[in-house]
Amino acid sequence: MRIALDAMGGDFAPDAIIDGVIDAQQHLDADDQVILVGPTQTIQARLAGRTGLGERISIVEAPEVIGMDEPPVESLRAKPKSSIAVLAKLAKQGQTDAVISAGNTGACVAAFQMRMRNLPGVNRPGIGVVVPTFGGPVVICDVGANIACKPINLYQYAIMASVYSSRLLGKTNPKIGLLSIGQEDTKGNELIRKARVLIKSDPDLNLYGNVEGRDIFKAVVDVVICDGFVGNVVLKLSEGLVDGLFNAIKDELMREEPQLALTFKPIVKRIYQKYDYNEYGGAPLLGVNGTALICHGASQARTIRNAILAAKRYHQQRINAVIADYLQARAQRMSDAQTN
Amino acid sequence: MRIALDAMGGDFAPDAIIDGVIDAQQHLDADDQVILVGPTQTIQARLAGRTGLGERISIVEAPEVIGMDEPPVESLRAKPKSSIAVLAKLAKQGQTDAVISAGNTGACVAAFQMRMRNLPGVNRPGIGVVVPTFGGPVVICDVGANIACKPINLYQYAIMASVYSSRLLGKTNPKIGLLSIGQEDTKGNELIRKARVLIKSDPDLNLYGNVEGRDIFKAVVDVVICDGFVGNVVLKLSEGLVDGLFNAIKDELMREEPQLALTFKPIVKRIYQKYDYNEYGGAPLLGVNGTALICHGASQARTIRNAILAAKRYHQQRINAVIADYLQARAQRMSDAQTN
Repeated sequence: MRIALDAMGGDFAPDAIIDGVIDAQQHLDADDQVILVGPTQTIQARLAGRTGLGERISIVEAPEVIGMDEPPVESLRAKPKSSIAVLAKLAKQGQTDAVISAGNTGACVAAFQMRMRNLPGVNRPGIGVVVPTFGGPVVICDVGANIACKPINLYQYAIMASVYSSRLLGKTNPKIGLLSIGQEDTKGNELIRKARVLIKSDPDLNLYGNVEGRDIFKAVVDVVICDGFVGNVVLKLSEGLVDGLFNAIKDELMREEPQLALTFKPIVKRIYQKYDYNEYGGAPLLGVNGTALICHGASQARTIRNAILAAKRYHQQRINAVIADYLQARAQRMSDAQTN
Repeated sequence: MRIALDAMGGDFAPDAIIDGVIDAQQHLDADDQVILVGPTQTIQARLAGRTGLGERISIVEAPEVIGMDEPPVESLRAKPKSSIAVLAKLAKQGQTDAVISAGNTGACVAAFQMRMRNLPGVNRPGIGVVVPTFGGPVVICDVGANIACKPINLYQYAIMASVYSSRLLGKTNPKIGLLSIGQEDTKGNELIRKARVLIKSDPDLNLYGNVEGRDIFKAVVDVVICDGFVGNVVLKLSEGLVDGLFNAIKDELMREEPQLALTFKPIVKRIYQKYDYNEYGGAPLLGVNGTALICHGASQARTIRNAILAAKRYHQQRINAVIADYLQARAQRMSDAQTN
């Protein structure tokens, strides 16, 4: 399998990316190839002196870089030779089986959508992220690809996230929750109410009903569906709160009980790692015609390594084929849902 | 001052409510009166044997109760003698200076809005909750009163929450953040972009700009503005995550290091209390023509006591008068904003 990575994407690029690729080596199959996309010289300098890389790593030149905070569409237009733009072109030309980037999320979504196109039957792709919760991993979709969702988009997110949950996390008949402001069916805005009707009418989906913010980390459901605006707020809030709380505990302990703090540290660290988003590597852009993973901007080498392994599993599990078949078998239902 | 409470509102009513009232006694002024609204016999039974209550507590009969999960508007119509409905009537008839309920939030919002009416110039009230963060208390508005916001609603929430932040929390020129999916002005949906233009155009408001989910608990701003759907998800997610994390830490410690766990218990508990929403009692329904506080459904006696004290401060600080004056001085600006 050929896996292409944006060598310049993320806060710790290119080092974290290249180190992640090197870490992943031992887990790859003999015929796996890794393509690093970015400024050749920068990448070569970082690779220099590394042994045992063999022939499996190649470099594709991309001299430009899109900053994490640049406006996505404008910067893609202004920087056709950026690592994200070149990465998307490789996928379009069939020169790679998967693309991975920890760069500007908006630019990744725009470039991958534009170049790779959507899976047949998909209206809008959505980012499906796996979050570690107190009840095990939960998939949240969408977390930022589509901030103006229609009911059919949420319906398709429920389908794609369920397939992802069952094929990648091994959940049988995953429970689907619609993120709302109350568990009762009457609670929620028009988008949620209309999406519920569509999902409920599909006998092959396991709709639990509405879930509230507090239910997400209790793993009341396996899959949480929401529009990309809400999902993005949820994801960033969760990260900020988890990091902040563990820091607060650390600081208070150091101030109040420095001796105890040292004993406590390894335990807290072990607990923290359970809720560490780096464990799951990248989040797939569900609905594009290919394997495209978007990683956290603060991705470390470990995150990138895990993203490479996640891309392999996503590809091997033929998740896109399953989604496409599911949608094709419901072509009429989907065209009816358009009008809602 | 006369303060009326829904004796039957919340998961632990009536005990937590009545105990909270009793706890608050010592902090009240000589001429303060507390009115308990609910089934007289139930309340009297609970009050029986309590000493030192003096003459300051009176009971107003309300035989019906609206359940926490009942549909708000329908249940208000079906139960005109419910504690929430009677509470709102007391306010309308000028028989109380403040109302407090830990009951069905939707029913409280509907009843208080209908009976108390809006402050002159306010289009839609919003719930302004104070959340404890790693950088001190932050006001989030709206957290569930209005799930279909227009730009002018967010603009008025920014005004009301700023007044609340400065008068009640003592923040000078509070920094306002619009909750969005990126800090850059280009990030966000149409509602956020239009609201930003309105807030930015008001020279008396201190707009920081967009904030992301992760910024809330860093206290990057003093006031976070969002529509009620997003705010409700944020509030419940935060509670669930904080509670869940502390439970996880407790459980892991008990399993792995039972001895250490006992040592850490008081420390962790002390840290937890810093982030405990009960500290701030109730959240005002900003924009109604009176003092109306809505408390968490899981309110304990301590929460209710704090809510009573918060209602006193809210009243004494003349927060509504300040808001009304601010809006009146911008009558033209507001009527222009209607059309946006």
